[in-house]
Amino acid sequence: MDAYRCIVSKREVRSFLPREVPEETIRRILKAGRWSGSSVNRQPWHFVVVRDRERLAALSRFGRFSGHVAGAAFAVALVARSSRDLFDAGRCAQNMMLAGWSEGIGSCPATIQDQDGARAFLGIPEDRTLVTVLSFGYPDPRASHPIERVVRRVIVGRGRRPLESMVSWEAFGR
Amino acid sequence: MDAYRCIVSKREVRSFLPREVPEETIRRILKAGRWSGSSVNRQPWHFVVVRDRERLAALSRFGRFSGHVAGAAFAVALVARSSRDLFDAGRCAQNMMLAGWSEGIGSCPATIQDQDGARAFLGIPEDRTLVTVLSFGYPDPRASHPIERVVRRVIVGRGRRPLESMVSWEAFGR
Repeated sequence: MDAYRCIVSKREVRSFLPREVPEETIRRILKAGRWSGSSVNRQPWHFVVVRDRERLAALSRFGRFSGHVAGAAFAVALVARSSRDLFDAGRCAQNMMLAGWSEGIGSCPATIQDQDGARAFLGIPEDRTLVTVLSFGYPDPRASHPIERVVRRVIVGRGRRPLESMVSWEAFGR
Repeated sequence: MDAYRCIVSKREVRSFLPREVPEETIRRILKAGRWSGSSVNRQPWHFVVVRDRERLAALSRFGRFSGHVAGAAFAVALVARSSRDLFDAGRCAQNMMLAGWSEGIGSCPATIQDQDGARAFLGIPEDRTLVTVLSFGYPDPRASHPIERVVRRVIVGRGRRPLESMVSWEAFGR
């Protein structure tokens, strides 16, 4: 897929087909995260890949709106060195999600409210930060996930603010 | 450019040719940021584009290692709603940098230590967060920027840790 088209067409997907993603493809996605830039090339991340169906279901319960993780083909818990690494973690996550999208694989970050529960479940060391859990899988074209329906149609929609509302030239507000 | 190739080949570029980037291309890059996903589609960002040569030089002095901003064709100061938006800001920044890279435009985030100075200079409202300044421009193949030479050859290199060192399966450390 063309890079620019991949970037501007990427949408969050929360409803997945019950179809496995080949391990080779998972590794391609992880490598896309690996090649992300980071401040002084610290590469402050670790990826915990979860594929076990029961563990995906358990993992999905640590966030309020993370039910989509249960139906994912796999999830990547994105672990950072510290809470100062959130910007770099965002870059890394975007690389992985775009790499998936370029092969027709949808994804969505899940915010984890029950940090203690998820950290214990995943065995994350005390000095690391669990940033987010990314779900991945082939999109279900019926988009049956209730959250997805709500998010798309009611709460926020899938559109974006006009470019002019988010751009200034030379100084803020100009 | 192929999306996956764009993602895994992207490197930080700090040395730029003295060549303008057409405004149409700048807008394509901004649109790539605009289409980034964000938590509940909040789109918590604002882009302050700086092209004026003297303002780029001034902006470059607010960070310890941000000299590359002075030589950029343009810079994007990435402003977020709050410090809780750093992960989404990272996703958005990566979209813009990859969109540039797909058209042969290099980029690098500059961490801004003198936040008060940069915020006043850019006119950023008190309730917003200045996340980073992204420099953009056509790469100088001679890579003459001193920081670039140092970063590449001495301090950190441009490589990445082996994938296996940053991946676990099912739980951290496995």
